[in-house]
Amino acid sequence: MGEFLHTLDGWYVLHDYRTVDWASWKALPREERQAAVDELLTLMRGWQSIEEKKEGSTAAFTIVGQKADLLFMNLRPTLEELGELETALNKTRFAEFLIPVYSYVSVVELGNYLPKEGVDPYADPVIQNRLYPILPKMKNVCFYPMNKKREGNDNWYMLSLEQRRDLMRAHGLTGRKYAGKIVQIISGSTGLDDWEWGVTLFSDDPLEFKKIVTEMRFDEVSARFGEFGEFLVGTRIDGEQLAKYLEV
Amino acid sequence: MGEFLHTLDGWYVLHDYRTVDWASWKALPREERQAAVDELLTLMRGWQSIEEKKEGSTAAFTIVGQKADLLFMNLRPTLEELGELETALNKTRFAEFLIPVYSYVSVVELGNYLPKEGVDPYADPVIQNRLYPILPKMKNVCFYPMNKKREGNDNWYMLSLEQRRDLMRAHGLTGRKYAGKIVQIISGSTGLDDWEWGVTLFSDDPLEFKKIVTEMRFDEVSARFGEFGEFLVGTRIDGEQLAKYLEV
Amino acid sequence: MGEFLHTLDGWYVLHDYRTVDWASWKALPREERQAAVDELLTLMRGWQSIEEKKEGSTAAFTIVGQKADLLFMNLRPTLEELGELETALNKTRFAEFLIPVYSYVSVVELGNYLPKEGVDPYADPVIQNRLYPILPKMKNVCFYPMNKKREGNDNWYMLSLEQRRDLMRAHGLTGRKYAGKIVQIISGSTGLDDWEWGVTLFSDDPLEFKKIVTEMRFDEVSARFGEFGEFLVGTRIDGEQLAKYLEV
Amino acid sequence: MGEFLHTLDGWYVLHDYRTVDWASWKALPREERQAAVDELLTLMRGWQSIEEKKEGSTAAFTIVGQKADLLFMNLRPTLEELGELETALNKTRFAEFLIPVYSYVSVVELGNYLPKEGVDPYADPVIQNRLYPILPKMKNVCFYPMNKKREGNDNWYMLSLEQRRDLMRAHGLTGRKYAGKIVQIISGSTGLDDWEWGVTLFSDDPLEFKKIVTEMRFDEVSARFGEFGEFLVGTRIDGEQLAKYLEV
Amino acid sequence: MGEFLHTLDGWYVLHDYRTVDWASWKALPREERQAAVDELLTLMRGWQSIEEKKEGSTAAFTIVGQKADLLFMNLRPTLEELGELETALNKTRFAEFLIPVYSYVSVVELGNYLPKEGVDPYADPVIQNRLYPILPKMKNVCFYPMNKKREGNDNWYMLSLEQRRDLMRAHGLTGRKYAGKIVQIISGSTGLDDWEWGVTLFSDDPLEFKKIVTEMRFDEVSARFGEFGEFLVGTRIDGEQLAKYLEV
Repeated sequence: MGEFLHTLDGWYVLHDYRTVDWASWKALPREERQAAVDELLTLMRGWQSIEEKKEGSTAAFTIVGQKADLLFMNLRPTLEELGELETALNKTRFAEFLIPVYSYVSVVELGNYLPKEGVDPYADPVIQNRLYPILPKMKNVCFYPMNKKREGNDNWYMLSLEQRRDLMRAHGLTGRKYAGKIVQIISGSTGLDDWEWGVTLFSDDPLEFKKIVTEMRFDEVSARFGEFGEFLVGTRIDGEQLAKYLEV
Repeated sequence: MGEFLHTLDGWYVLHDYRTVDWASWKALPREERQAAVDELLTLMRGWQSIEEKKEGSTAAFTIVGQKADLLFMNLRPTLEELGELETALNKTRFAEFLIPVYSYVSVVELGNYLPKEGVDPYADPVIQNRLYPILPKMKNVCFYPMNKKREGNDNWYMLSLEQRRDLMRAHGLTGRKYAGKIVQIISGSTGLDDWEWGVTLFSDDPLEFKKIVTEMRFDEVSARFGEFGEFLVGTRIDGEQLAKYLEV
Repeated sequence: MGEFLHTLDGWYVLHDYRTVDWASWKALPREERQAAVDELLTLMRGWQSIEEKKEGSTAAFTIVGQKADLLFMNLRPTLEELGELETALNKTRFAEFLIPVYSYVSVVELGNYLPKEGVDPYADPVIQNRLYPILPKMKNVCFYPMNKKREGNDNWYMLSLEQRRDLMRAHGLTGRKYAGKIVQIISGSTGLDDWEWGVTLFSDDPLEFKKIVTEMRFDEVSARFGEFGEFLVGTRIDGEQLAKYLEV
Repeated sequence: MGEFLHTLDGWYVLHDYRTVDWASWKALPREERQAAVDELLTLMRGWQSIEEKKEGSTAAFTIVGQKADLLFMNLRPTLEELGELETALNKTRFAEFLIPVYSYVSVVELGNYLPKEGVDPYADPVIQNRLYPILPKMKNVCFYPMNKKREGNDNWYMLSLEQRRDLMRAHGLTGRKYAGKIVQIISGSTGLDDWEWGVTLFSDDPLEFKKIVTEMRFDEVSARFGEFGEFLVGTRIDGEQLAKYLEV
Repeated sequence: MGEFLHTLDGWYVLHDYRTVDWASWKALPREERQAAVDELLTLMRGWQSIEEKKEGSTAAFTIVGQKADLLFMNLRPTLEELGELETALNKTRFAEFLIPVYSYVSVVELGNYLPKEGVDPYADPVIQNRLYPILPKMKNVCFYPMNKKREGNDNWYMLSLEQRRDLMRAHGLTGRKYAGKIVQIISGSTGLDDWEWGVTLFSDDPLEFKKIVTEMRFDEVSARFGEFGEFLVGTRIDGEQLAKYLEV
């Protein structure tokens, strides 16, 4: 072992899932609710202005089903900025009506990079766009964490570099079929959170999430080595839509 | 790998399980309870009218045992409609007395479809009825999520298309024995929720659930490849029965 | 596969475990506590009178350890009756001081039955007594759910009918050694709850539970194929003892 | 199979872990806190007097880390006495400030006993002392539950009696190295609680817990067949120390 | 078996993770909040003064994501001191606004030590510094617990001493590449807590956590034998920063 494919690492990512405590929220007087929403929207506009300065990216989603009501997804150059952003949200009035349910910490990652002498990949604008991405304004989101298995004969980390590269290449070909329908952001979380990667998919049609994840499951790399966590699916909302969502 | 059986996908499905907080519900003054029930029944009549327009389907059930008290099952053409329906329920007065316990997001699926050139399967009325089903008015329901195993030699996703087709065909023959006793809706959830499929069974005799699931477990496809989640069993109720159920 | 041993199915069973919220219970004025106990005992007398009419069976137990305080075990001809019984309990005053902890839904089952032509097993009085049992008035109870394993070479559902019958026969011989000391009720729950079977043991000496379960674990059918859930052990109480138990 | 090593069974054991709700406890007026402590100490003195009559044994511990604050460990001749003792604790004032976190039900066990004709092992005073032990007054305690594995080729219950005896004998030799440093009480819980055994270790130096459990893990019987649950470590306290611990 | 590599054991370690109940904290009058912070900082200064006397070590961190808000990490010569320290924290006013989420008990460990006759390793100053470490003042922390696997052919505890030593030596070489970037404290917890080891990494750049854990996962010892628990990552704060963090 020892030899392994390097990664290029970009912005840190925080997926932050919350559920609304509707009973308490409704019990709040209308003007206090309004003030809480105003404060939240101001916070979110701050996140937006950071995206405009290309110092990070931001998006909010409503989640379908009981796992969560809302997802706030933010990207930043440092882990500390994500921590501060999370604390600022926690201190808002609205957070008193949010039940934390799940979060995920990771770093945008381009995997399987083979370093070439004299080349600084971080200077390449194509790579820059992938490492420091502005989240696509597509309608739907799907997030799930995953591992590569280490069980008996299905031990990813005991394969040779060539075997891993071949398996990933075939996998990449499957992904390419969905170009234009799906945008995918892979973020690595080994040493940062409980799984080895987070996968965030964006699409204008959530059925595409089902199609790509199903088709990829037949790739040997997923069939033999993929271990998958919870899947959460949602719909993008801007501040105005969020305000409307919170009307009671 | 690569080659796989396609699916036809129909309406999105939300299984939404809730438990009644009886102590708080009883503490509510009678007229407020009545108003809350009226509001709930109005919401459910709206779901019913959508079913009448064939723009979705709806059913409510009481669940036996402590896992949940109620199941609201709804089908809709889009994921967004399911999210809105769930949010509308969450904003009702009655939802203040409901504890969310479990939900499942999936899409009605006809599996193992082999596309034929020049044929649009979605135009076939038989297929339409199966993809956009009106939930049968049978007395009992059984729901469980499931995966196909990927462990050592029992790895479904490493089988050839032929092997998978043969195993599923034998499985289908077992299912056919229950024609007239059991109606089954398979919905796919790979990429949408934590398991690969949801199975909803309907019958007028819950013993049939035990019989079919037991018999099928001896099919090689289940014996070797089936992984099963929680089973929830219940009894269908209409609005009037629900109102009676909630009398305290 | 395909060929399998049939089961005979009797009454539905609900195991319903609850924990007393002692702090709130003690805070209730004495006369309200008395009224709550009276209401509960009336409900339980109703269950008792159903047992006397042989339309079901009933028993209550205190459970040792923190998993639960009380177990209400009821058998009924239909799933609906169990659901109604549970709802009636939930609506009592006393239920406001009970925290639901665990429940299990199953059907009394005689397994491995080979149908003989022209014979209606349900007409046999010996079989009737086993399918529609009056719960033994022994001092202690032990309940646990279980599965038959489907892992690699230890896959129960891939064995031939003969292999399964031989393994079960040897297992039965172990059980017979405990005749007179242990009464065992097997109930099937495939398709009804999360495990394939529930096992309820009754004895006047809880040490017998340890002895039979240990000895059986050395039977090949348990050693290789048994998967066991939580074990809960308790002591039978009648209404008067329950009233005394609830005195604070 | 069939042939197995018998066990000798002594007193029933209840490990009862609780966490103090410090915020509520502090909010209680000082004199009420004092009364609650007095009532608790009276209860514990009753347990102590039973130990003095050799009709059981008792000890209390503070637990390090957030898993629990307190462990009450009691041994009694019958399961019913343990249940009553637990209920008496639950009804105290102090229990209103205790959050139940974990409990374990078992029976003191001498394993691998080969019955000899004409010999009543329960009459042997050495065996009596081990089956009905007075808990050692050592400073520290360590408790964990465990199973013997039944996985593929590592299936304890498929080994011959000779194989099991040889493996246990080697294991016993490792244990003997710790004579004088560690006192160990093995209690069986097959059929009584979720694991097959509970192990309670006592020492005046908690580092010995680490040493013995580590060394034993290299014994084949543990390496191949041991499955371990949660480990909880604590420090013995008497009534006076407990009163001081509860001063706020 | 029997022969195994010895460990040298140093200070006991308590990782204590807590989440702030922001809603309640904000509801507290400003002067009471100030008093609570003052009391906390006094407690932490006491911990600091123990570090200055080299009788232990201490550090506080904010944690990114919803798993926890704060980590208090303390090292002490005895388990009892850690227990007292935890109880003192629990009794503070501020602890009323902290939700306990996770803790871990372990002992600083130098593994794989081969005892040499006539040599007392504890007298060696280099070893002393590693067994009784002052926590590095680096900006970030990463903690995770881990086991060595015992599954089929991947059973660490069935390897020979030579095999284990060779695998650990190769692993150590990977670690050495991160000298100057990462400081690592290994603490053993077999017999003390639920995993066999805790790993605490310190760095000024959290990306180094991702790099080292990823690279090490390709070492055979991790690939085949490593089992990993939850990963928690955070940022060091001193008392002043903590006070600022708690301003609302």
